[in-house]
Amino acid sequence: MSRIETYDTTLRDGMQGEGMSLSAEEKLRVAHRLDKLGIDLIEAGFPSSNPKELELFELLAGERLGHADVAAFGMTRRREVPAENDPALQMLAECFASVCTLVGKSWALHLDKVVKVDRDENLRMIADSVAFLVSQGKRVVYDAEHFFDGFADDPAYALACLRAAAGAGAETVVCCDTNGGSLPDRVGAAMATVIRELQPEAVAIGIHCHDDAGCGVANTLAAVRAGVTHVQGTMNGYGERCGNANLATIIPNLQLKMGHECLTDEQLSSLTATAHFLDELLNFTPDPDQPYVGRNAFAHKGGMHVAGVNADPATFEHIDPDVVGNRRELLVSELSGKGTVHARARDAGIELGDGDAARVTERVKQLEHLGYQFEAADGSFELLLRKETGEYEPLFRLESWRAIVEKRADGRVETEATIKIWVGGERYVRTAEGNGPVNALDRALREALVEIHPHLRDIDLVNFKVRILDEDKGTGAVTRVLLDSSDGEQVWGSIGVSENIIEASWEALVDSLEYGMSVATRDARDEAASTQGT
Amino acid sequence: MSRIETYDTTLRDGMQGEGMSLSAEEKLRVAHRLDKLGIDLIEAGFPSSNPKELELFELLAGERLGHADVAAFGMTRRREVPAENDPALQMLAECFASVCTLVGKSWALHLDKVVKVDRDENLRMIADSVAFLVSQGKRVVYDAEHFFDGFADDPAYALACLRAAAGAGAETVVCCDTNGGSLPDRVGAAMATVIRELQPEAVAIGIHCHDDAGCGVANTLAAVRAGVTHVQGTMNGYGERCGNANLATIIPNLQLKMGHECLTDEQLSSLTATAHFLDELLNFTPDPDQPYVGRNAFAHKGGMHVAGVNADPATFEHIDPDVVGNRRELLVSELSGKGTVHARARDAGIELGDGDAARVTERVKQLEHLGYQFEAADGSFELLLRKETGEYEPLFRLESWRAIVEKRADGRVETEATIKIWVGGERYVRTAEGNGPVNALDRALREALVEIHPHLRDIDLVNFKVRILDEDKGTGAVTRVLLDSSDGEQVWGSIGVSENIIEASWEALVDSLEYGMSVATRDARDEAASTQGT
Repeated sequence: MSRIETYDTTLRDGMQGEGMSLSAEEKLRVAHRLDKLGIDLIEAGFPSSNPKELELFELLAGERLGHADVAAFGMTRRREVPAENDPALQMLAECFASVCTLVGKSWALHLDKVVKVDRDENLRMIADSVAFLVSQGKRVVYDAEHFFDGFADDPAYALACLRAAAGAGAETVVCCDTNGGSLPDRVGAAMATVIRELQPEAVAIGIHCHDDAGCGVANTLAAVRAGVTHVQGTMNGYGERCGNANLATIIPNLQLKMGHECLTDEQLSSLTATAHFLDELLNFTPDPDQPYVGRNAFAHKGGMHVAGVNADPATFEHIDPDVVGNRRELLVSELSGKGTVHARARDAGIELGDGDAARVTERVKQLEHLGYQFEAADGSFELLLRKETGEYEPLFRLESWRAIVEKRADGRVETEATIKIWVGGERYVRTAEGNGPVNALDRALREALVEIHPHLRDIDLVNFKVRILDEDKGTGAVTRVLLDSSDGEQVWGSIGVSENIIEASWEALVDSLEYGMSVATRDARDEAASTQGT
Repeated sequence: MSRIETYDTTLRDGMQGEGMSLSAEEKLRVAHRLDKLGIDLIEAGFPSSNPKELELFELLAGERLGHADVAAFGMTRRREVPAENDPALQMLAECFASVCTLVGKSWALHLDKVVKVDRDENLRMIADSVAFLVSQGKRVVYDAEHFFDGFADDPAYALACLRAAAGAGAETVVCCDTNGGSLPDRVGAAMATVIRELQPEAVAIGIHCHDDAGCGVANTLAAVRAGVTHVQGTMNGYGERCGNANLATIIPNLQLKMGHECLTDEQLSSLTATAHFLDELLNFTPDPDQPYVGRNAFAHKGGMHVAGVNADPATFEHIDPDVVGNRRELLVSELSGKGTVHARARDAGIELGDGDAARVTERVKQLEHLGYQFEAADGSFELLLRKETGEYEPLFRLESWRAIVEKRADGRVETEATIKIWVGGERYVRTAEGNGPVNALDRALREALVEIHPHLRDIDLVNFKVRILDEDKGTGAVTRVLLDSSDGEQVWGSIGVSENIIEASWEALVDSLEYGMSVATRDARDEAASTQGT
C-alpha cells in the first residue's frame, strides 16, 4: 500500500519535554540512529538562537546521513518585515539543511491575543516566508499550528492558511493539534475536508499530534486513514505536557496493521533497540508498558496465557514480537536463555558444558533479581562466564579500600581514596585524589596496577551512568552503575549494583579493568599464535 | 447527553500488571476511593481461589459503599458440567456481590487450541452460566473475551456468543479486545454491527480494551460513539503487557469532550487526587506525562507558551486543569523568561521588582549552563528566588562535612559521615552511619537539626535521581542529583550539581530541608494570621 513519509521531531519539539537534555554531540548520535532506523526527515531544531544549536548545525553539516534529510525549524516572518530581511529566515536560508520547516498561525484566538496580527497580514506572512525559502532552493514543510482549534472556530480561514503555504510552493502542509486535546473523529473529519480542498496531487498533507487526550497515536492514524501521507512525531512520545504522538507506536501500527510502508523489515526489527537507545541516552527508564517496544509488551503472566502462547502465539499476541525487535517474556525473566549463553561463550572463546550453561542462566536470573542487567554490560557478563567455568583469574586480591570526601569550612571539597591490594604475593598501598570518590578510587587502583600491567594505562572510562532502581526509597535505594570503557579499539560495558553508590561504582570499575586485561591477554595470545604459524 | 456506566477492573485485571501488589485492606481502600470518585461498578476479583481474595470479599461484604456496586468475577461453567454443579459458579452465587461478571470465549482459535471445546458447547456454557446466576438473583455482566479477533474471524459466531449471554438474561454484554491490538476503526465498525444486531433496548452493550497498539482510550471512545453505554478500564491504565484502557483519561474525554455524563462535576475534580492516591498506594511514581492528571499535563515551558497562557489559557490548554483537579505549572527553563519568574514568585509570596526578575532569569541561565535544571526542582528554585531578593535565611552555617566509605578485607562496606555546623551561635558535631554516603550525611545533618526544628523529622526523601551530564568524560563527568521530598502533604524537588557526586547530593539535600522548613514556617504563619483574623 501507499508509502507514508515519517518526520521525527524528537530533537526539536521532543526537547520541550521535562527532563529532556542532550548535548550537541548526543543529538548527532540521535540523528544517526534515527537515520539508520529509516526515518525520512529529522528535524534538528532552530539554526538560529543559542550557541548550542549553532554547534549542532555545524556538526550536522559535516556529517553524511544514509537516508534521512535534515530539517531546520523556524517561524514565519515577523509582522510587516519583508521575508528576505527577517534575520531568522535568512539564517534558515543559509543553513545547510535542504528542508526547512516553518510554523505559523491558523487560529484567530492566537492572532488576536498572542501575536496581535490581523488575518490578512498572517496569510501574507505565511505566503511570503514559504516563497522566500522556496526561492532559496529549500524544500519547505509548513506546520499549521493549532490547526484543529482554528478549523473548529473558522474552517474557511484555517483552510486559507494552508492554501497560502501550498500556493507559495510548500512541498508539504502539516495540520498540527498543538494543544493535543482533539479526538480521532474530529481529526479524521477535518483531514477529510483538508484533503478534499487542498488537492493532494499538488501538495503533500501531513499530521502532527500531541497526547493530551491520550489519543496522539489514534489521531495520527485517523488522519492517515483520511489520506494524509506525512506523519510527524517523536520517538517514545517525548514532548511537553503529555508528549508528542509516539512514532515508535505509530510506525508499527501503520506498517503491520494498516498496510502502509514506512521502513524496511530489517529497519522495523531495530525499532525496540532504537527506542531503548534514546531512553538510555536521555537517562530515562524505558517505559516497560510501552506498546510494541516495552519490556512487558509481550510478557505473559497467568498460566493460561503461557499455555495459549505455547499452543499458538496468536492466541495472546497481537503481532510477532520479533518483527519490531522485541521478544516474548514468559513469567520468569528468561532474558538470557541458554542459547544466548552458549553464543556469548563461543564469542569469548570459552568452552561450556551443558551444565555450565544452565548454571550461568540460573545465576543471571538471581543477579537480575538484585538489579543487574547484562544487556549493556558485556564485559561483566564475560567475567561471569569465566567465574562460573573456573576460568576466572582475578587481577588482584583486595585487602581494603577507603574513600573520603570532605567539604571544608572554606567551601572546598577534597576527595581522597586509598586502596590496599595484593598482586603476585606483594602488597600495594596507594592513595590518590580525584574530583569525586570514584575517580579517586580509579586513580589509586591503577597507580598500583600499571606497574605490573602497563596496558591498563590505555584504558579510558568513556561513559558513566547511574540509575537508582527503587527511586521511591530515597537515599536508601539500590544503585546500578554502568561503565563503558575503551582501549582505543574496543568498547566494553561493566556493571555494579549496591545500596552504596561507591561500592556499586567500585564493582563496575574492577570488572572494567579485569575485562580490559583479559582482552589484552587474549590479543597477545592470538598474536603469538599467528606469529608461530608463519 | 447520555449517561455512560463506568466499570473499574483495577482490582482484578489491573492486578495482572507488573509490580501490582495490594493487600486485602489496601484493596478495600481502593474500592472506597473509586466509590467516592463516582465509579458505578467496581470489580473486586475472583471470590473463589486463594485466601487473600476470600479475605477481601469478607471485608467488602461488611462495608457500605455510597454509590458503587461490587462485581465478583468468574468464568463460564466447565465443559459438560451443569452450571449449578460448578464450584466456581456456586461460589459466585453465594457471594455477597449483587453483580457477577462472567468471562467466556468467542474466538474459534481459542476453542480449538486452548480450551478444546466445540462451538455449540461453548454457546451452551455461556447461556447456562448466565442463566444460573440470573436465577440466583444476580445482575450479570458478560465479558466476551477476544471478541474483536473472533468477530474478524467469524462474525456470525462471535455475535451468537453475545446473543447466548443476552438471551439468558445478562444485563450487559461486553466486547473485549483481550489482545489489545485493535485499531479504533475496526472497533467502531464491529460495535456498530453489534449494536444493530443485539438491540440495545434489550441488553446494555459494553467495551473493554487494552493498550497494545496505543489505542486503548481511542478504541473505547470509538465504541461509545457507536452506541456503547458501559465502559470498562482501570485507573491509570494498570494492567498486563501495555495495560488496560485508562479510565482516568477516558472519563474526562467522555464527559468534557463528548458530552456524556459519568461523574458529577465535584467528583470529576477529584480525579487527579484519586489517580495519584492509587499510584502512591501501589508505590509507583505517578506518570508525570499522563493526560489530564499528570504533573506535566498542564505544564508550560517555552516563553511564547507562557505568554499565551497569561493572555488566555485557552491558547495553549485544551481544558481548564481545575475541572479534573489538576493545576497549571509554569516550568522554569532556558527557553522561558521573566513572565514565568514573576508567576512563580507570586505563588511563593515573594515580591519581585523588575530588576529582580531580570537578575533571576540571568542567574537561571548561568546555572542551567552549569547543568542545573529547575523544572523538577521547584524547591531549589524558590530558594534561589529568596537568595536573589535577600529573603533567604539559611537553616545553618556549615563548618565542614566528611563522608567515609570503606570496604574492608572481609568484604563489608562501612559508611560514616560527620557534619560540623553552626545553628544560632552554637556548634553541632554529629556522626552517623548509613547504607551509602548520602544516606549517612542526611542522617548526621538531621540528627543535629531536629533538636531545633522537630518538623524536619517528618520530611521523607521520596525519590533520588542521578544523572551524569557529560557521560563521555567517564568518572570525571559532572553529576546532577535531583531529590524529591515530602512532608506527607506536599512534594517538592531540589537539585545539586557538581563534579563530585557526594557534593551534588549534599547540595540537593540541604535545599530539600531548607525548603521543607520554609514551607512549615509559612504554614505556621498562615495559621497564626487566620487565627488572628477570627
